[in-house]
Parts: sequence; C-alpha cells; structure tokens
Amino acid sequence: MTALPIPFDPDLPVFRYHLGGKLAVAPRRPLAGRGDLSLAYTPGVAEISRAIAADPTLADVYTSRANTVAVISDGTAVLGLGDIGPAAALPVMEGKAVLFKHFADVDAVPICLDTTDVDELVDTIARLAPTYGGINLEDISAPRCFEVERRLQERLRIPVFHDDQHGTAIVVLAALTNAAVVVGKALTTLRVVISGAGAAGVAVAGILRRAGIADVIACDSRGIIHTGRTDLAEHKRRLTLTTNPRDVTGDLAAALVDADVYVGVSGGTVPEVALGRLADRAIILALANPDPEVDPVVAARYAEVVATGRSDHPNQINNVLAFPGVFRGALDVRASRISEGMKLAAAQAIAALLPHPTAGEIIPGVFDERIVPAVSAAVAAAARTEGLARG
Amino acid sequence: MTALPIPFDPDLPVFRYHLGGKLAVAPRRPLAGRGDLSLAYTPGVAEISRAIAADPTLADVYTSRANTVAVISDGTAVLGLGDIGPAAALPVMEGKAVLFKHFADVDAVPICLDTTDVDELVDTIARLAPTYGGINLEDISAPRCFEVERRLQERLRIPVFHDDQHGTAIVVLAALTNAAVVVGKALTTLRVVISGAGAAGVAVAGILRRAGIADVIACDSRGIIHTGRTDLAEHKRRLTLTTNPRDVTGDLAAALVDADVYVGVSGGTVPEVALGRLADRAIILALANPDPEVDPVVAARYAEVVATGRSDHPNQINNVLAFPGVFRGALDVRASRISEGMKLAAAQAIAALLPHPTAGEIIPGVFDERIVPAVSAAVAAAARTEGLARG
Repeated sequence: MTALPIPFDPDLPVFRYHLGGKLAVAPRRPLAGRGDLSLAYTPGVAEISRAIAADPTLADVYTSRANTVAVISDGTAVLGLGDIGPAAALPVMEGKAVLFKHFADVDAVPICLDTTDVDELVDTIARLAPTYGGINLEDISAPRCFEVERRLQERLRIPVFHDDQHGTAIVVLAALTNAAVVVGKALTTLRVVISGAGAAGVAVAGILRRAGIADVIACDSRGIIHTGRTDLAEHKRRLTLTTNPRDVTGDLAAALVDADVYVGVSGGTVPEVALGRLADRAIILALANPDPEVDPVVAARYAEVVATGRSDHPNQINNVLAFPGVFRGALDVRASRISEGMKLAAAQAIAALLPHPTAGEIIPGVFDERIVPAVSAAVAAAARTEGLARG
Repeated sequence: MTALPIPFDPDLPVFRYHLGGKLAVAPRRPLAGRGDLSLAYTPGVAEISRAIAADPTLADVYTSRANTVAVISDGTAVLGLGDIGPAAALPVMEGKAVLFKHFADVDAVPICLDTTDVDELVDTIARLAPTYGGINLEDISAPRCFEVERRLQERLRIPVFHDDQHGTAIVVLAALTNAAVVVGKALTTLRVVISGAGAAGVAVAGILRRAGIADVIACDSRGIIHTGRTDLAEHKRRLTLTTNPRDVTGDLAAALVDADVYVGVSGGTVPEVALGRLADRAIILALANPDPEVDPVVAARYAEVVATGRSDHPNQINNVLAFPGVFRGALDVRASRISEGMKLAAAQAIAALLPHPTAGEIIPGVFDERIVPAVSAAVAAAARTEGLARG
C-alpha cells in the first residue's frame, strides 16, 4: 500500500463525476412483455443453449461474448500509486471500460481480483475465459505480469494483452517512427535509451528490436542493464540477450552519450547534464504520469522532438491511442491471440495517420476519430495474414 | 452433456432475437473531450483510487460495484438441459442479467466458469468478489451447489444467493400462502409433498419449515425420503432431520395420501391415480419447465388451485417474481448477506400484493410493477432489523 492520504472532498469535480460509478449494463433487446420474456429467458433461451452445446462456436454469434473484453487487475501496480489493492483499482478498470466503449464500441467489464499469487491469477483468469472474447490485463506489477500473461496465452485461445506492456510499446513505436522522420534519421539506425525495465520498459525494448532498431539500451534504477550485472531478475537478464549490443556499462548518463532517443517509462528524473550528452537532433519521450521524467521545457533545450504522457503538452503519448483499436481489430476477426505482427501493424497504422509529422505533432490526438478504424483494420489484416483470424 | 441435437434455424425469432447477444456496457458519464477523459481516466481517477485505498468502503460510493451483481454458473444444471458446459450456459446468464436490469435496475454481468470442481469454484468466485455488490449463483448442479454456496457465504461479506434454490423457494412460499387462503386452510397445518430433492426441493422444504409448516415430505426418484433409507446423499440425509415427521415410507403415491399440497420441482410425472389420493381442496404446484409434472387440465380434476411455471396458464410460478426485488433490497442497504428472514419477508411481500387471492390468481403476474418495490422494501427492512444492513 503506497497510496498517500489525501484530503477527501466529495464536492471536487472528479468525485462528483464518479458518484455511483461509471458503468452500467444495457440490454441490447427489448423486454416489452411475455413474448420478449419467453425469448430472452425461458423457454426460448433453451434453444440457444442447445444450439451452442451442439456447436460451441455459436456462442460468438448468439451471445455478447465476441464483443466483450474483461479488464482484469490485481491492483498491484495501479497508475503511479503502486499496490493499492483490488477495490482501489476498480475505478481505474471502470475508466478503461468507459474508454473501450467510447472509442471502439467494445463492451468491457472490470474485474479486480483478490489475489496476487501468480498461480492463482492464472487459474482464476483461465476459468473465466469462456465468458469473454478477449482479456486485457491491467496494472499487474512486474515481474509477475510477464509470467501471468505468458501462461494465459499458452492456455487460452482468445487474445490476452497486458496493456501496460504492449499498449505502451505500440504507441512508443508509432511516435518514434514519426519522430525519426522529423529529425531526418532512419528509424532502424536510432540509438535508443529506455529508462525503466518494468512492464513498459521490457515491452518497449521488445517492439523496438522487432521494428529493426538494433541499438537499444535499457536502464533500471541501478543503471545500464548489461551482461556483467549479477543483480538482475529474470526479465532483466533476458533483456541482456536482445539489448545493449555495444555492452555499455555505467549509469543512465553513460547510456545517454550520443543517444538519439531517450524513452522514460520509469517515473524517475534525469539530471540535466546527462541530457546534454544526447546526439544532435535528439528525441525525448518522457512518459511518466503525471510528472514526466524531464520537464518538457527543459527537454526542448536538448531535443528537437519532445513528447510526454500529458494532455496539456503537445505529443501526448497515451495507450488509448492503441488498445481500443487493437482489441476492435482482434475481436472483429475473432483472433486467437494478438501477435507481434499485429502490434507492429497497429503502431504503423497510428504513425501513418500523420504522413507529414512535425516536431509539434508526431502522433494523432487521442480524440482523432480516424485512429480506431485505421488501427483495427491493420490489426485485423495482420491477423488474417498470420492465420490467426477465425471469423 | 445432455443437450439433444436440434434443427438449427437462424431465421427463427429466438435466434434473430439473440443475434449479437443480449447485453452491452453503457458508460454512465459523458466522455465529451479531454476534460472528461482526465476525470474518467488519468490523471483524475487516481484521486478516486487514493480515496478508496484510504477508505475501502468508498468503493461502494465511487464505483459501480454497489449496484453490480455477478450471475455465475458452471453450466452443469442449465434449465432442463443438464450439464451443457459454460459456453452454452452463457445465453441463459445473459438473459438473467437482462431481467435484473429490466425489473430492478441491477447491473448484472454473466460469468460462466470453466471448472466444475467445488474447491475451484469457491476459490475462483471468492477472488472475484471485490468487484461486485452481490453474487447470484445459477444453474450449478446438486449437491455441489449447496457446498459452493455455503462456503462462499462463510468467506464473503456480500450476498451470495443460489437462485435455483432460494428464488424458487420464495415464490413457492408466496404462492402457497395465498393458495391456503383460497382453499380455506391454515398455512401451517398444510400437509405438503415435494417431488424433487435437488437444489429447488431442498430449499423449498427449508423455507416451508421456517414458515411454520410442520408436515413436509420430500420425495426423490426412489420415493419418500425417510430415516430408514440407506441410499441418501448428504443433502438428502439432512432432509430427514427436518421433514417427514410421521416417518412415512413408500413411493410418491404413498406420500400423496391425504396431502393438501403437491409441489413438483422434479421434472418427472405423477400417475393420475396418485393424484386421486390428495385431500379435498388440494393445491398442485407443478413447476417443471416446459412440461409440468401434471398437466394443468388433469390437475384441475384433483385440486382447487393449480399453478405451473408456464406463462400460458394461470398462476405462473417464476423466479423472476423474487430475485430482482431480493437483490434490489439487499443492494439498497448494502446487506452483508441474504438471511432466512429476508427470504421470508420477500415471500410475504409477494403474497401480500394479492389481498384477495382467487384460484385463478394466487400470485401476481411477472410484469406487475408493484413487485420489485414491495419485495425490495421488505427485504431491506428485514436486513435492517437483523443488523445486516451497512448503508
């Protein structure tokens, strides 16, 4: 429990907005009288059950499952608040469900689980799976999040997507794709330093490598992750296999020497002197919320392109650019999983919405209505190409 | 898997009604722009999470939890279809959710679980509990349903209600209360025979005993349940402690000698000769769906009051008379559980809606708009009286 006591004022707009919660259930069919009742429930519904029992794929046609995503958390890594437990995570999951519905017409339901044990999380979520078309894991702390996601993906034949990892990674790649154009450098030649080696950092490193960027260095709070370190947890040790090809050692400042890109997904801060070591025409993505690792005004002295997670600065990097369209596309074709290719396609689709990016606009705004159609179409097409589409 | 193959015709009204499923999610707040986004999600929602982390009861105020019920099944006893699995149970649970919303403005979400193991069911459902204000268990086969419900009630501080048991029991008691008036007999002096000793039969026997009816005999497919039987499962053995005070032995026909009431919750049939042994001015509640244990036309020859589960005959005994109001009342006062007293209060409230019952109308129609207000008020009042209300 890392949440701090706050003055609780029910008259604040945010408390008024949340009174009674943010979600309701809405029947999609009328229930005007006995006739409708006999269709929606007994005896009529028995015909639907019998049809599904005979052909289980009909559950995707005659129930809401195919458009329903569970947004599941154990409350251990909620926003920047840390391990605040399942009840305190619930308003965040409800918020995510509101965004799913608003942006992509996906019916998402929050589920906050009263366990933090990896085996129990995996078993519990796997048992829920017949109810849903997809599972969005959310705010589960590293390193447990990696194993939970991997084991569920092995067990289930529906998309399981840890948004803190892959949503962030997709949007970072989209932003970097366009930022590279702005600074006149080829994407694959960029030297990238990632500050943070948790869920987001690991996923960002992965997608950048798969996008062809060879020189990625990841740092944690103790400095550069390299093969000589003996203090690395498993997920960080695996990073040494795919990052830091020049085997640089030292602290974050050492990593930043001649780097083209700084990606902050750590919530720490960067000494200004270290920023001075960046290459010319650098790119800074300082994504910690609500306080970026580098103040955007300071960042602008050292980089040509600056982006943050904040809505009150240009270039807001926010997962909402990715997850609604990713799930929309995956559900549209009843994809059995969300592959690396589908994530890359999502990033490219977001970037392509700005054919002439500028330093002040490397990424579309979150309310740009072109995003979900473009992302979902790209994701669905990639799923079909890879043979992952079932409908 | 007991479902029979059926001709599947997507043009039938019931299939057209179910196309795409029956449920959607509806945001309760606008998301009109960046301002709303910053309230519904980051950064504003963090204030709600911090407040709940400091005071967990605020989750009932600032999330949708307090009005949300999970309708949970393992698909083992679905309608009359038996063990058809979680996917085939889903349209039934969606239907239940539609009824919850329509009749009582309860936001219910279906959950169909991919396990039938009692320990796994209990653990899984208990871990889901932080998300919900109540849990409606549905279509879980006996005898597992008894242990699942009991253990969850011990672990959780929210209502856990197996509707196949208690919804049926409440409505049967309501119907019998008014039927007794019609036939001019005191409720507590009635001799009652229950055909069926599964979930519904056990619960009906329990509520009738608590309502003061001393002479209840339960029968299973092998005949009367009595102390001399050596073939009884645990839940049936417990019935010998509270039923059959005259220790009658024999078959259903033996039980019916001089009985005032036949309650069918078995799905079997009753030989007409046995019906002839009922007392004068008898009552027949033949509740199997879609085919009552006794044809209503035949039943009318042997009983003054006849009720079935069907909507095309008078006196439809349907759980929808009970569960919406029961949960509405329990949620309204944030009851920690649904007690026997609350169930009795629900039955009395339903019966009291017809102060002058007749043979053709012992129970209100399911669309009678007085039902939910009356039942919920009675349930809430009983919860307060028993000290189970928290809000």
